[in-house]
Amino acid sequence: MNISILLFEDFETLDVFGPVGIFGHLADKPQIFFYSLAGGMVGNAHGVSIATQKAELLDDGADILLIPGGKGTRGLIDNEEFTGLVRRVGSACNFVLTVCTGSALLAKTGLLDGREATSNKRAFGWVTGISNRVSWKKHARWTVDGKYYTSAGVTAGMDMALGFIADQYGAPQAHEIARHIEYTWIEDPNDDRFSDQE
Amino acid sequence: MNISILLFEDFETLDVFGPVGIFGHLADKPQIFFYSLAGGMVGNAHGVSIATQKAELLDDGADILLIPGGKGTRGLIDNEEFTGLVRRVGSACNFVLTVCTGSALLAKTGLLDGREATSNKRAFGWVTGISNRVSWKKHARWTVDGKYYTSAGVTAGMDMALGFIADQYGAPQAHEIARHIEYTWIEDPNDDRFSDQE
Repeated sequence: MNISILLFEDFETLDVFGPVGIFGHLADKPQIFFYSLAGGMVGNAHGVSIATQKAELLDDGADILLIPGGKGTRGLIDNEEFTGLVRRVGSACNFVLTVCTGSALLAKTGLLDGREATSNKRAFGWVTGISNRVSWKKHARWTVDGKYYTSAGVTAGMDMALGFIADQYGAPQAHEIARHIEYTWIEDPNDDRFSDQE
Repeated sequence: MNISILLFEDFETLDVFGPVGIFGHLADKPQIFFYSLAGGMVGNAHGVSIATQKAELLDDGADILLIPGGKGTRGLIDNEEFTGLVRRVGSACNFVLTVCTGSALLAKTGLLDGREATSNKRAFGWVTGISNRVSWKKHARWTVDGKYYTSAGVTAGMDMALGFIADQYGAPQAHEIARHIEYTWIEDPNDDRFSDQE
């Protein structure tokens, strides 16, 4: 299993490192790669600066594509080079996971048309305005529709990552990882305690 | 407020980015800096590679020093250049925060002598064996003793970061950040659901 994470300037720190810090504990160790359109260092407002590879390499075959959210999604939504890449790679790979407003970028490609998806509850109006062909679900910690997983805001991505692991490797491994990192997993994707936010 | 994070090879991903992803949302935006002994890129087994500055710059005055845990702590515990740096910077700065086995590195310096501290519950035997002059507390999500904050394993660092924010800026801001990142904060430092682990 390899996990390819598509970064951009001003990604949300925990949208990325929540899932990475969980997938990194799989018994069957995945390879985790970081990409960005141009490659090189990609940073955010939290002072984080990550080394990435050029995203064109993603066309050679990603297994799992993860798209975080963050303030940077706003400027990318009309970037056709970026959404074109997400469309190509997202169609070809086995699973696409989005965290927070990452689902807006995926929705823009059309790949979520006719599918259930969710997003950050504080950006829900903006995200759902990107496409009315998606069945947006406001009350959800995360959603699964075919090969597409989408989570609510930030730390919901950690619960989704554990949910993905439960689906692929069985619930015991998800529970074991949660326990190892001393994390209280919200394991019911419909347990959304934050959906009342605007 | 500036937060200086001391990295090393094979740090635990979420020990670092849990707190960073929380402190980054403070209304009074802190500057967050990443350091390592040699400077340059520092990586871990999860495929993360972070740009750092040379740690000697830390001697010019850190406000808050954060030391993560991870497998890399084992090889560092007898590295006198590293523990000497932690001792110097830790003595001089306003607060020292450790996550997971980061408290072993701090304990080694003597700065925790006579103070309460905790650590990862699965590495508790190793950590407490580093120093018998520390008042190790097994049942704790995190501890506060003077300017020293130490947390239990991995995601306990997120709860400690919110606890630190509550102490410095008031509980409402900690609750607001938790809500913003859709995180269920364990706000009682004595609520340790994982202390039965070996």
